[in-house]
Amino acid sequence: MNPIALDDAFASFDVLWSPRIVARVNDYDVRIAKVEGEHVWHVHDHTDEFFLVLRGELQIVLREESGERTVVLPRGAVFTVPRGTYHKPVSPGGASILMFEPSGTLTVGDRHDEVPGHVEATTGHVL
Amino acid sequence: MNPIALDDAFASFDVLWSPRIVARVNDYDVRIAKVEGEHVWHVHDHTDEFFLVLRGELQIVLREESGERTVVLPRGAVFTVPRGTYHKPVSPGGASILMFEPSGTLTVGDRHDEVPGHVEATTGHVL
Repeated sequence: MNPIALDDAFASFDVLWSPRIVARVNDYDVRIAKVEGEHVWHVHDHTDEFFLVLRGELQIVLREESGERTVVLPRGAVFTVPRGTYHKPVSPGGASILMFEPSGTLTVGDRHDEVPGHVEATTGHVL
Repeated sequence: MNPIALDDAFASFDVLWSPRIVARVNDYDVRIAKVEGEHVWHVHDHTDEFFLVLRGELQIVLREESGERTVVLPRGAVFTVPRGTYHKPVSPGGASILMFEPSGTLTVGDRHDEVPGHVEATTGHVL
């Protein structure tokens, strides 16, 4: 078990919206992803989902009781999407992100809109 | 619930080895800390502990079956200390780090050497 350099990890793949698992913590994964454009509206019924932006800017559109709200995460920002909240990650200019979530969590959640071709339904790939 | 800029969060405190909780994910905390010098040998019997280095360099000395081993985490490196492994974080030149671990996890673990005055036994502070 040795440290992993995130720069090297990011350099090892180019596919967008396709998380790589860089570490495990008990029954949680630390995943990284390159993103650009729009993901898909989805909801995790049983888990929160944590985001840290390492490069670029990520926006997350949330469907809240009071309506839609977009949170903007520039580089170095963190945010947790609460369980049960429909959300859609978006990154017009592209971003590199890190996520914490329970192992086995699907990228498209438990319920989702129709999954577009550029979005992969996965629980993450080994680096 | 709004995003938190880690730069602002780090600017809000100066105490070393005294983690601040920047986000919660289910029953886990995301904590940040400024560190410099030596922490204390300790072990978490029931949980792994995840480290990401955001500034500077962190070293973690591990007591493994084959002897002591130091893993070096430069900026941008990640590493998980497995549960049950005695370890001592060290940073001769100082570092800013992010950790992921179950809420309530003590900085000095379940068992530890004598805690020096500069090390705080805490489960993390609200930002």
